[in-house]
Amino acid sequence: MKTLALLGCGRIGAVHAATLKEIDRVSLKWVYDSNRDSAEFFSKQYGSCVASSLEHILEDAQVDGVLITSPTATHPELVKKALLSGKGVFCEKPLALDLELAYQIKEVYSVHKMPFVMGFNRRFDPLFRGLKNRIRLGELGKVESIHIISRDPQPPPIEYIRLSGGLFKDMTIHDFDMLRFLLDGESFETIQVEAGALINPDLEKEEDIDSAMIVLRSQSGVLCSIHNSRRTSYGYDQRIEVFGEKGVIQCPNVRADQSVFWGAQGERKECPHFFFLERYKEAYKEILKHFISVLYEEESQCTLEDGILALELAESAHGIYKPGLYKKTLV
Amino acid sequence: MKTLALLGCGRIGAVHAATLKEIDRVSLKWVYDSNRDSAEFFSKQYGSCVASSLEHILEDAQVDGVLITSPTATHPELVKKALLSGKGVFCEKPLALDLELAYQIKEVYSVHKMPFVMGFNRRFDPLFRGLKNRIRLGELGKVESIHIISRDPQPPPIEYIRLSGGLFKDMTIHDFDMLRFLLDGESFETIQVEAGALINPDLEKEEDIDSAMIVLRSQSGVLCSIHNSRRTSYGYDQRIEVFGEKGVIQCPNVRADQSVFWGAQGERKECPHFFFLERYKEAYKEILKHFISVLYEEESQCTLEDGILALELAESAHGIYKPGLYKKTLV
Amino acid sequence: MKTLALLGCGRIGAVHAATLKEIDRVSLKWVYDSNRDSAEFFSKQYGSCVASSLEHILEDAQVDGVLITSPTATHPELVKKALLSGKGVFCEKPLALDLELAYQIKEVYSVHKMPFVMGFNRRFDPLFRGLKNRIRLGELGKVESIHIISRDPQPPPIEYIRLSGGLFKDMTIHDFDMLRFLLDGESFETIQVEAGALINPDLEKEEDIDSAMIVLRSQSGVLCSIHNSRRTSYGYDQRIEVFGEKGVIQCPNVRADQSVFWGAQGERKECPHFFFLERYKEAYKEILKHFISVLYEEESQCTLEDGILALELAESAHGIYKPGLYKKTLV
Amino acid sequence: MKTLALLGCGRIGAVHAATLKEIDRVSLKWVYDSNRDSAEFFSKQYGSCVASSLEHILEDAQVDGVLITSPTATHPELVKKALLSGKGVFCEKPLALDLELAYQIKEVYSVHKMPFVMGFNRRFDPLFRGLKNRIRLGELGKVESIHIISRDPQPPPIEYIRLSGGLFKDMTIHDFDMLRFLLDGESFETIQVEAGALINPDLEKEEDIDSAMIVLRSQSGVLCSIHNSRRTSYGYDQRIEVFGEKGVIQCPNVRADQSVFWGAQGERKECPHFFFLERYKEAYKEILKHFISVLYEEESQCTLEDGILALELAESAHGIYKPGLYKKTLV
Repeated sequence: MKTLALLGCGRIGAVHAATLKEIDRVSLKWVYDSNRDSAEFFSKQYGSCVASSLEHILEDAQVDGVLITSPTATHPELVKKALLSGKGVFCEKPLALDLELAYQIKEVYSVHKMPFVMGFNRRFDPLFRGLKNRIRLGELGKVESIHIISRDPQPPPIEYIRLSGGLFKDMTIHDFDMLRFLLDGESFETIQVEAGALINPDLEKEEDIDSAMIVLRSQSGVLCSIHNSRRTSYGYDQRIEVFGEKGVIQCPNVRADQSVFWGAQGERKECPHFFFLERYKEAYKEILKHFISVLYEEESQCTLEDGILALELAESAHGIYKPGLYKKTLV
Repeated sequence: MKTLALLGCGRIGAVHAATLKEIDRVSLKWVYDSNRDSAEFFSKQYGSCVASSLEHILEDAQVDGVLITSPTATHPELVKKALLSGKGVFCEKPLALDLELAYQIKEVYSVHKMPFVMGFNRRFDPLFRGLKNRIRLGELGKVESIHIISRDPQPPPIEYIRLSGGLFKDMTIHDFDMLRFLLDGESFETIQVEAGALINPDLEKEEDIDSAMIVLRSQSGVLCSIHNSRRTSYGYDQRIEVFGEKGVIQCPNVRADQSVFWGAQGERKECPHFFFLERYKEAYKEILKHFISVLYEEESQCTLEDGILALELAESAHGIYKPGLYKKTLV
Repeated sequence: MKTLALLGCGRIGAVHAATLKEIDRVSLKWVYDSNRDSAEFFSKQYGSCVASSLEHILEDAQVDGVLITSPTATHPELVKKALLSGKGVFCEKPLALDLELAYQIKEVYSVHKMPFVMGFNRRFDPLFRGLKNRIRLGELGKVESIHIISRDPQPPPIEYIRLSGGLFKDMTIHDFDMLRFLLDGESFETIQVEAGALINPDLEKEEDIDSAMIVLRSQSGVLCSIHNSRRTSYGYDQRIEVFGEKGVIQCPNVRADQSVFWGAQGERKECPHFFFLERYKEAYKEILKHFISVLYEEESQCTLEDGILALELAESAHGIYKPGLYKKTLV
Repeated sequence: MKTLALLGCGRIGAVHAATLKEIDRVSLKWVYDSNRDSAEFFSKQYGSCVASSLEHILEDAQVDGVLITSPTATHPELVKKALLSGKGVFCEKPLALDLELAYQIKEVYSVHKMPFVMGFNRRFDPLFRGLKNRIRLGELGKVESIHIISRDPQPPPIEYIRLSGGLFKDMTIHDFDMLRFLLDGESFETIQVEAGALINPDLEKEEDIDSAMIVLRSQSGVLCSIHNSRRTSYGYDQRIEVFGEKGVIQCPNVRADQSVFWGAQGERKECPHFFFLERYKEAYKEILKHFISVLYEEESQCTLEDGILALELAESAHGIYKPGLYKKTLV
């Protein structure tokens, strides 16, 4: 049995707390939030004790690991403290808002190598795991290109966006990691970005965007493309196509209800899942199970290094995209 | 918390024992099988105590209900004893091999009205529940016809078939109940059967068949069709189409893996689920949860009467089908 | 070059006249209708001469064949006269309203064996020809069952229905022929019918129905099912499934526009073709080309005998269906 | 009736000659090829006269228009001569291998404005026309992004590639035009290219590539993406997705045979059309019909200007792609 503490009692914290209940060999002893009221409310729902301070948790010898589910800006400090206290760490994405801070974490980790799982849950989605497995088995022959469509159903509130680090670090970072996952960790030689605030032009004031097309070339020459949007009328659009010599594997959107209706308006099927929690429910469960296994000394399939490398790509995309710059202008 | 005993430690018993572990408010105290070794083996896997006798269970005041998962021939005796002992009953389909025996159960029940759930799990499948709900909401207008395709992946062993009561009572009974479920319990005016031992001609010696087409007309005039087969090369084929004034709703087969491969041989998708346990995993869980709720005094959505009425249809089909009889012969 | 005359200037006549323009090696010299005005109007559209009398056409030595596209009641007389005059015959379905009349045609034909093509156009549909071809190539192994869904988009006017011979001879006859086509002409041992006037109860006064389920067993034991309806909210529903040892081949509905829309209401595709002319456009062309080839001495793939055998099945179905009779009544 | 001459008796010339036979109001009087034997052979197949010289055709007052189907390098000279001789022009894509030459054509045209249709046949594909129409009708609301997948089944011979002007002018030019078509002629602000010789590395010696991802931003901010490949195991991959505020319209691949097979290997459908002639058969017919209409003074829907603007995009892409240059290099 492993004992955990959860740091950050917001929405994603709730997801993990609820998921933990379905998992064996683990108990959630403490929850903590810098806002004590949030922690109290959370505790009533999920039944763990509210820790009076972070230190209290880190000093508790019973605690094997922490789940870091607080706002991104707080990740570096929390991760470092947890590592220094000898706790295993599960950290939500992204690792940090800033590469420098991520590198500092790495430095601490190089001395205090505790069990670590970066929260790229999509690596644990059964559909995408199946995809990777089939690639590995050679079903496609040599992989030549990858296309990821990753569109959120609705833009988050502007307050969230201001703290998010921008589209590339907040949203595309999942897709950068997915490319790395599918390409077995291969690195990239080039990256190009085109983007805009097409849905909400006010985002320009925040120096952010809501729509993007990113193209990368991997070291072995694989052409990769990511299409992002913050709004999709029909739900959460999460598709991948991997092309190889021998064919293509497509991961389509997933519906809750597979039934089909035909009427005077034609053939109609339900929208894909609307919320990320529904779409990736199983992935959230699998990654937490994996974290427990890593606490039991299994090797991490989603390391600190994975967190840093995806962040490097995100920061790179972020740096390129300055309206009017770094792009071939016609005429 | 409700306390259960399981009577019959075979395959379907194992399904229910495993499912119970995922359900709140219930514990499985006893398991019993007339073959003591089976029960011992089962107990090692699922962790309950082996009861030395049926009476032991029925006299245990702690036991709220029994799951009857033994061979069909033993159902009537077990159901009656359980009712007489004041236990709630979950009974696997079919209720009995013979209508007379079913009516005897009914007589006992009329005096000893205990909580009762007939094991027509498909009523609890999310896809079919959704279908019924949409019908009820009027999406189709007046329902005019229903078509059920229900094909097993592989024929069971001949020993199983000998004890099964024949295709109609063993397999079609699910489809008869599904028609009744979708038609809100409406009764039928006519039934017609065409069938044959197309896959395994040896079944004729057993006076059984492996392929059938059944047509019924409901009291309100709805035309209903059931197509059964004991063998399907591509897996477990479980489809329903309901036609109404305004359109049709189709429940297609369900795959474990939704991905699509395109290669030189064309577009390829995975087979549907091969085993009934995979296809109806959620339904099995929901019906057991429902049984617990019924033990907590909720009204049963799948009653003894439902078990009897489906059996009447099965017996009727069974009676019609005598090769060469009751069928319009062309010249 | 072959020279034709067209007898019957109604809707189906117009289909054939328009189609003939796209075909080589043939010219339409005469059109004829007992209603002279119809013929005049028709001639203005399609450019052939109006014949003053049927005899005029039959005596014209230039005429190689006739297309009989008049109301069904007139078919027998026209076919017999054409055969006696030594003309090749293309006859729209059904051959006759009555088997006795069909047998009389057969008698004439046995002496005057002219080129003859029965107008079962669906045999020439590319989708269904492909299906038959794949069956023949053994893709399914032994065929075990066939399911035909054949639903019209809208009921014809009551005046049409009164002259049509009833659902089975007017509509199901295509499906009976399709079964015979797919089964290479095999005959049937049993037939069962369930039906009703579900869409328009007034049809009962006409002793007709608008919805039917028919089940047949072929001599080799293949179970066959036909589902008919006179009204389908989403268009012309024309599907076939053939099951065999090794799998199933499905012929789905065909759309004019293959595009897919996803919006807030889910995924939406266009209805199937609404009119039989659109759905079977290519089939109409192919069967006329075949008729020209038969005039050039190729063997007919859709013979007078095929016309009679389908009519026998239709008459048999018609005979069975008397509300309340010939059906197993429950209790 | 309009009278045409065809210049260039190769594969694409044959497509147009065959298509002309199915079109009203037109006759093909002359065919010409600098290789006389090719012209003779062609004439035997398609039945027109072989012209002894180009001048012969251009001086023939009966000739209303010419179809230019010769190798791209010869287009500019032929187009200019035809315009100067007062002939209408249908010119296969691309207009020229070089923008300078294209501008020279434009200069001639500015003085000799003859009927002109640029051979971007895909504008006339029913699926894509339907797409454009639905966009125009507002089904998507404001368009936000477009994704074109355009993959050939097999690479052409290296000899063809050497004369083709490179992937962007030979293949992508269709996709550039498609973007312009869907965006109603809007121009682009930026273009980015990533590409490689992934299928045949020898292409690098020819300074060509066989795989590319191109991203453009239109003046109104629409993000556009084109994915090209010279080889696709499953046939000719021609898909478009247009995203807007209200949803997405997808144009999927088109199959010749819509049937579906389910067997032990899962669900299987046929490959899409393998040859461009099959996929765009109707488009080829429609664009020629349009050319005839333009000769009859209808306005051209695919102008010389369209030819030039697509070529500008292609040349721009061609200019960008120098391995290692103009691309953001990661560290």
